[in-house]
This record gives sequence, C-alpha cells and structure tokens, in this order.
Amino acid sequence: MEYGVIVAGGAGTRLWPLSRRDRPKQLLTVGDGRSLLQLAHERLAGVVDPQRIFVCALEAHRAAILADLTVLPPDNFLGEPMGRDTAVAVGLPAAVLAARDPDAVIAVVTADHVIEPVEEFHAALRHAFDLAAAGPRLVTFGIVPTHAHTGLGYIERAGAVEAESDVAEQPEGAPAEARHVGAAYKVSAFREKPDLETATAYLESGRHLWNSGMFVWRADTLLAQLEAHLPAAATGLATIAAGWGSTERAAVLAATYVDLPAISVDYAVMEPAAGGSGPAEVVVVPLALEWLDVGSWPTLAATLECDAAGNAVGALAVLVDSADNVIVAEDPDHLVAAIGLRAMVVVSTREVTLVCPRDESQRVKELVEAVRAAHPDRYG
Amino acid sequence: MEYGVIVAGGAGTRLWPLSRRDRPKQLLTVGDGRSLLQLAHERLAGVVDPQRIFVCALEAHRAAILADLTVLPPDNFLGEPMGRDTAVAVGLPAAVLAARDPDAVIAVVTADHVIEPVEEFHAALRHAFDLAAAGPRLVTFGIVPTHAHTGLGYIERAGAVEAESDVAEQPEGAPAEARHVGAAYKVSAFREKPDLETATAYLESGRHLWNSGMFVWRADTLLAQLEAHLPAAATGLATIAAGWGSTERAAVLAATYVDLPAISVDYAVMEPAAGGSGPAEVVVVPLALEWLDVGSWPTLAATLECDAAGNAVGALAVLVDSADNVIVAEDPDHLVAAIGLRAMVVVSTREVTLVCPRDESQRVKELVEAVRAAHPDRYG
Repeated sequence: MEYGVIVAGGAGTRLWPLSRRDRPKQLLTVGDGRSLLQLAHERLAGVVDPQRIFVCALEAHRAAILADLTVLPPDNFLGEPMGRDTAVAVGLPAAVLAARDPDAVIAVVTADHVIEPVEEFHAALRHAFDLAAAGPRLVTFGIVPTHAHTGLGYIERAGAVEAESDVAEQPEGAPAEARHVGAAYKVSAFREKPDLETATAYLESGRHLWNSGMFVWRADTLLAQLEAHLPAAATGLATIAAGWGSTERAAVLAATYVDLPAISVDYAVMEPAAGGSGPAEVVVVPLALEWLDVGSWPTLAATLECDAAGNAVGALAVLVDSADNVIVAEDPDHLVAAIGLRAMVVVSTREVTLVCPRDESQRVKELVEAVRAAHPDRYG
Repeated sequence: MEYGVIVAGGAGTRLWPLSRRDRPKQLLTVGDGRSLLQLAHERLAGVVDPQRIFVCALEAHRAAILADLTVLPPDNFLGEPMGRDTAVAVGLPAAVLAARDPDAVIAVVTADHVIEPVEEFHAALRHAFDLAAAGPRLVTFGIVPTHAHTGLGYIERAGAVEAESDVAEQPEGAPAEARHVGAAYKVSAFREKPDLETATAYLESGRHLWNSGMFVWRADTLLAQLEAHLPAAATGLATIAAGWGSTERAAVLAATYVDLPAISVDYAVMEPAAGGSGPAEVVVVPLALEWLDVGSWPTLAATLECDAAGNAVGALAVLVDSADNVIVAEDPDHLVAAIGLRAMVVVSTREVTLVCPRDESQRVKELVEAVRAAHPDRYG
C-alpha cells in the first residue's frame, strides 16, 4: 500500500515571530490563505488515500496541527516527544507502518515549501511510487535549478534509470504536462551547499538538481538502511514500533527517544547509499516546476500579493509613499500603517512586533536568540 | 476663589495610533508612566484645591478621562458635545463657575505639555493668580525661548507690570528658586509662527516668549471680553450656564453648542485685548523652565528613557544593532523586537502598528487621513 508522511519539524526561527516554539512555521499561511501544512497535504492527497496520510511532528504541536489540518485522522498524527533530526523523523513512520503493512511504500514530503503546479508534482510522485515499489530503491526528488543557488544542497545525477514495466502502468488519463514521467536517474553524489562559483558550475552542468528533502521508499528498504548505517536508531525505532499499539506507547517513546541519534537522513542514509554502501540504489526524479523554500521573510514574501510599489502584503495595511516592504500581520483585523517606508520587514503578532530592514532579515535568528536570552519563557 | 481648568481638547493626530478619536492624546503616558492629563492636574493641584479643579473636554471622552484621572470629582468634568475650539473651551468653565462664584479666578492649563520642574510652575501660577485677581487682567504664560522655534506662536512683551501689594503677599515659605515671582510684563502683541529668520530675531530680542496657551483670569473678566469681541459665544454660554444646574443641561448644551463660533481664544480674545480693545490689560508671566509640546512622536520621544544607542523606548523591547529609534507600545507586555534598525518610529497598539522613518513622522497626520479614508469607522 502507498502511504504519505508529512514531516513537519524544524523551528522556523527565521520566520519568527509568526513561527515560534508553540507554533511551527508549517502552520503559516501563504498568499492564498492556506497553511504550508495544508499545501503539503494537498501534494499527497491527489495520489495517496487521505486515510493513509500521516504527519510526523513534535507531540507538543499536536493540537495546533490537528486544528489546522482538520482532514487528518487524529490517529495519523505521529508525535515525537522531542526533535531528533530527519533520520529519526522519517524512520518513525517507516517503523510504525512496516509493523502494520510489510509492503508499505512511503512518500515523505516536507511542509516548508510551496510547489506549483501541484498536478505536475502528483505525476512525478506516482512515478516515484512505482520506482520505489519495483526495487530496493531510495527515491528522492531533485528540483531543476533556475539559478546558482548557494543556500541549498545539490544532488548530482548519473545515468537514467532504465524504463521498467512500471512506466507503462501510468494511467491513460495522466495529464499531458506530466513530462517527467519516465525521467529518473541514478544519484552519484549529494553535494553540500556550494559557493557561488561551484553553484554556477552546477547550474551549467545540467546534472545537478536542488535537494528537495522529499523521498519515496519502501518502509522495509529504509529500515534496512538504518539498520546498516544507524543501528542505534533502528533498534530504538523497532522498540517504539513494538509498543505503538499498546498503552505503553507514550512511556516507550519517552524512554527511547532521548537516546536516538540526532542526524539528518541525508548524512545517515542517502549519502552512504549513493556511495554504493548497501543494496538499495539511490534514484532521483527531477522536478522542473516552481519550488520555493519558505525559510525566511523574503521567501515568504514571494508567496504574498505584491502591490504596484513592490510591497508584499499579508496584512490589512495602509501604505503611503512606501515601497519594497514585507508587511505581515497574524490578526486579519490588525492594521499596519506606514508612511515613507522603504525595504523593511514588519511582522505583527498579538504578542510581538518585528521590524527590520529587508536585507537584514536573515539576522532574525540572531534577534530571536537575544529575545530568548532576555525573556526565556515567552515571546520565543 | 481660585479654580483650575484643564482644557483637554485637540485630536493629537500626529500621535496616532496611540492617540485616536476615542482616546485623546492627553491620556498618553510619558516617560514616568503618568499621563499628560495627570501631569496637568499635578501642575494645578499644588496651588488649587483639587475639589476646585475641572476638566473641559469632549463629552465622548468622559469615561476615558475619569478613568485616567481618578482624583477628579465626576461633577468637575465639563463635557462639550462637540469641539468648538479654545475660545468656547475656556468660555464654558468661566460661564459655569461665574454663575456659582462671582469672584472666581480661573487658571487654564493645557494637557499637551510636559513642564519641569513643577515647583517653579507652581510659584509662577501663584503669582499669576494674584495678578489676575488684582485687576481686570488676562494673564498668560510665556516660555523663555531656548532656540529659534518656528512651530510656535510668540508673545511680544512690553514693560514690566509695576510691583503690587500682591507680590508682597507671597508666603514666607516660598521656595528660593521661585525666581519668576514678581516678573510680569504687559503684552504688546501676539505673533504668528515665524519663519526661521524672524524666529532668530525673536530669540535675540529678549522680548519674545513662546505662547504657552495657558491663562489665568477672573471669570467675569474673560466673559466681558467674550461679550465685547465674540457676542454669539457670550450669549450661548450664558444660556448654557443658566441651564447647567437643571435637568435640561444636556438638551441645552446640544441645542446651543452647534451654533457657537469655533475660533481660538488667541484670535478671539487675547489679540484684540493686547491691541488695547477693552478694559482688561494683557499680562505675561515668563517661565524659564523646561517645556515640551508633546505634539509628535519625536517630541514624545524626548520624554522617554533613552538607551546608549539613542533609542527612545516606551515599550518592552529587544533591540539588536539598532539606533536612534522611537519605540512605543501601548500594551506593556507586547514585545517590540528589531535588528539593524535605524532612526525609525515604531508604535504598537492592539489594533494598529505604525512604522515610519523618524524624519517623516510629521507626516503621520497625512497617513491618518489615508487610514480614515480607507477605513472610516475604525482605526482612526
């Protein structure tokens, strides 16, 4: 059976104060009023039965996430007692689902991104499910780069994966624009965030793709990789999966999680596998579509409506002689008013007002640290 | 008997959004947490019995003002059904008090200013009461200028008022620093806001003082002036005073006020009187003390605590690498956080966030007009 998992971790500190400890950034709404989490669900729901879509996130965020994503069956919320990075965040659903369905194939998507058009993603996802089901494969998605981005990791591809019967199984009605169906490549290496010169070379090579952080794999394939490369995690997750259906679930989680290794799935699983360690091959499905990593105020601004003066506005606002600002308010009735304002970020929540120059907005993380130091129990 | 009246009119539009239609700027708190209205009351209470201190303001502001100024006897709130400028705002208390005390002498103070030290003002006020009681005089206060201010009207003084018995009546315990006692001058003219060249000449003349908008007079002296120069106001106010003690007060006010002339006391009374029209002489008592017209964000900032980087802060704030800003929040628990911010005004209220460059803050009035045009029933 096919399953979908939305991994909704990550602090989103650079999107403070709209994202904060008790309200992860996946709950932020973008231009059309839907949250990043709702968009991630839509990305899966076109392909996977909604009853088999899960969310893996901090247990502390359960109520907020279920309130935002009302279509999610409450039992499909997999709560982590604490953050343990992505290897464990993808391992937990694999362990839990493998215990109930030995043939589970899982698509893992992030909730930090805006991807359009969603129909193209659906076509690529169907293809990735087929690739993952057909062999011991770790399938990932690579975004076809549009510029020499230095803030992302890259996937370097090798030759095409040979056409298999699964490609022929595409339904007749598949949309004509699903042009990536059939395109899939072996991965030769994962590359760290490059400097500009390297990023430019990657862009020109035609063989490098942005690492999307989304995957499709059989649950047993991933668990075998974890067993090989991260045995402490594999053992702990097996213990948790064994106790999942019992009344001891919370106690087992609490006792086990704290000792699980905090490491990314890229380091722990994907890179060793791409290096040829283990039986699974690493395959990338290219995505030539709009993909936005909503990681900071300027990128969030790109999802908002822009007025003629270049103000990206996600608020009730009256702006006089003001240009190139990012204006966001949590409360739709709160008015942000400005005159003579240039290239600033203004974010209003009930508890906090943030103001900083747009070109300093990467430093919000630094500001949050200062806020947490000054007010440890609030505002952060 | 001596009475005090705080005239708390004025929209305070340039201090929006902290001041707004339903919350006049006189309720704004300054550096030490007291409101401008409370400071104005303290200015009188050192000299006048608090039972004889009145507030004249819009009836619509009654509840907010009584809540802020809890020492005010509720009957001492004189509510205007609508704004009718200062000639009527000082005429109303004169008419009402004259009807109950033919010898009433009234000090009229504004609630738009910060005046320090208050003890010096008290000494000058005692002197002004004596001057006003001793003859048909309109006594005003002139601030000894410290710079060539172009945003204020000026009072030009002539010769000193001769020493009278009242000066000798100063109590033994009067503070040594009450150095203005005895100093009082005839006024030869009131001058409009000057250009810089004229303001510089005024500063050098030694004969020009800033017009404070504060007065002391016998009620009957003022009413006689109104009768001579603004008979429509005098007649209307007499009607209102006659109905004041009856159940018809509100009805008489409503029926009469709308037709009263809206003109400033300077134009209607002080300027003609200084020109020699009428029996009362116009006298100015100089005040050589700190006087701040809290009319805009930069002047309000001058009342706030300043950090080492020149940020004037009237809010819970975390400011990283930020300088020369004005940061104000209405809610003491609302955090304003900034990084890399220079010379901006940030004002947070529950309903509105204002952001503008400090050197554009005189344009807030323009912004408020845009807000009222876009949202006629709210936010303004």
